Amino acid sequence: MPASAPLLLISNDDGIQAPGILSLIEVARQFGEVAVVAPDSAQSGMGHAISVGKPLRIFREQLPGGLTGYAVNGTPADCVKIATGVILDRRPDLILSGINHGSNASVSSIYSGTLSAAREGALQGIPAIGFSLCNYQHDADMHTAQEVATKLIAEALAQPLGPGQLLNVNVPDVHGDAFKGIRLTRQAVGRWVEEFDERTDPYGRKYYWLTGRFALMDEGEDTDEYALRQGYASVTPMMSDLTDYAHKTALADWDLSL
Amino acid sequence: MPASAPLLLISNDDGIQAPGILSLIEVARQFGEVAVVAPDSAQSGMGHAISVGKPLRIFREQLPGGLTGYAVNGTPADCVKIATGVILDRRPDLILSGINHGSNASVSSIYSGTLSAAREGALQGIPAIGFSLCNYQHDADMHTAQEVATKLIAEALAQPLGPGQLLNVNVPDVHGDAFKGIRLTRQAVGRWVEEFDERTDPYGRKYYWLTGRFALMDEGEDTDEYALRQGYASVTPMMSDLTDYAHKTALADWDLSL
Repeated sequence: MPASAPLLLISNDDGIQAPGILSLIEVARQFGEVAVVAPDSAQSGMGHAISVGKPLRIFREQLPGGLTGYAVNGTPADCVKIATGVILDRRPDLILSGINHGSNASVSSIYSGTLSAAREGALQGIPAIGFSLCNYQHDADMHTAQEVATKLIAEALAQPLGPGQLLNVNVPDVHGDAFKGIRLTRQAVGRWVEEFDERTDPYGRKYYWLTGRFALMDEGEDTDEYALRQGYASVTPMMSDLTDYAHKTALADWDLSL
Repeated sequence: MPASAPLLLISNDDGIQAPGILSLIEVARQFGEVAVVAPDSAQSGMGHAISVGKPLRIFREQLPGGLTGYAVNGTPADCVKIATGVILDRRPDLILSGINHGSNASVSSIYSGTLSAAREGALQGIPAIGFSLCNYQHDADMHTAQEVATKLIAEALAQPLGPGQLLNVNVPDVHGDAFKGIRLTRQAVGRWVEEFDERTDPYGRKYYWLTGRFALMDEGEDTDEYALRQGYASVTPMMSDLTDYAHKTALADWDLSL
């Protein structure tokens, strides 16, 4: 690999030994030098958590293909912080996260550890892409996701993503002719409708398992959810400026005088 | 309290016994019925984490003023989910989170557990406000923050915030004449510049403490950071649609064909 080869930093939230990250590493190695820094255990649903008040440790981890990765006892966002702050001796050109086992479309992007690793890169001014496959199984077929990742990494390097630009890529669990292609999308409006499974432990105390189902509240045909349901992979560009400018304008009516 | 009194759900990320939440409860009780559901321990930096694969438990907690609150062994987002899903018998009219011990302006909003409790309400379609004071100390003076909260809760109920509308309110650590008032703001562009404090444990293994300093990268006079530095409280309306529409338009140049 020439010294000028791009450096691709790879992380995830399912842990450094998950099949999804190994599939993403396999794709990324075609494009440049690969560094892998990922959680030492599953971190699903971690949102953009960081470890405050807990020391982090770094463990070398042998990965397929003779690659040495780094496992960290922290969150996905921690992994990107410690990668750029301690482990790497040059700045990554692109951060890749995933391939997540499970969708991060619509509002799931907000709860997603996969996206938080990518977003942490974006907050540092490094372009980043999060990849997720709409299949929770450990042995999910990663071929369509790998095809999508190959295409998008090539585009992200050829027409480079700008500093801090972030893409949320979701891939439907369809293969062969059932897979229709890639679409640019927006985040669908929807919400998780929570249900709690109430149980009683052997000591007579109640405890609750969080469950839930996703409710789509958006009839648009330009959303990530619509694309996925039609057999397309979705590419949603995401922001780190969370200001609601329209609401800000509307609030000019409020009396804020004290 | 009449049956028609608004129900205000209060949570935080510093834990149910933090002075900040007790200060917010004191203010909120003037406006309606108050329900308190908050983490049983400090949850700073939890981002929008949820507990996947871990059972939640609910503990009754006696609070000042004869109020009974509920402590939950989970994240701020978990607290709001279990409050609306299990604990409360009617839907809250407004969700309040805080008063956080420490600023959540600029990109800190993304790492913030305080904001995630409020955002979880917003995702459920309930209007929500997160309050943070720019002072990390346990014994910080909450008077200015209480004055700001009183004003904003009154406005949020009188000219009601719409379903899912979310405000990120930050209060400077100034009091008396030094406190200038309240301003509508946008999220300042900035980033945390990470530093890791490397140490060696008694067994010869390295470990790292995450530290860092905030770097403001925004000269605008309409930002939360600018307002705070001038002695104003900042009110930044926030979105849950993270789509970057401008970037989406720009990406139309990409070749996404397979």
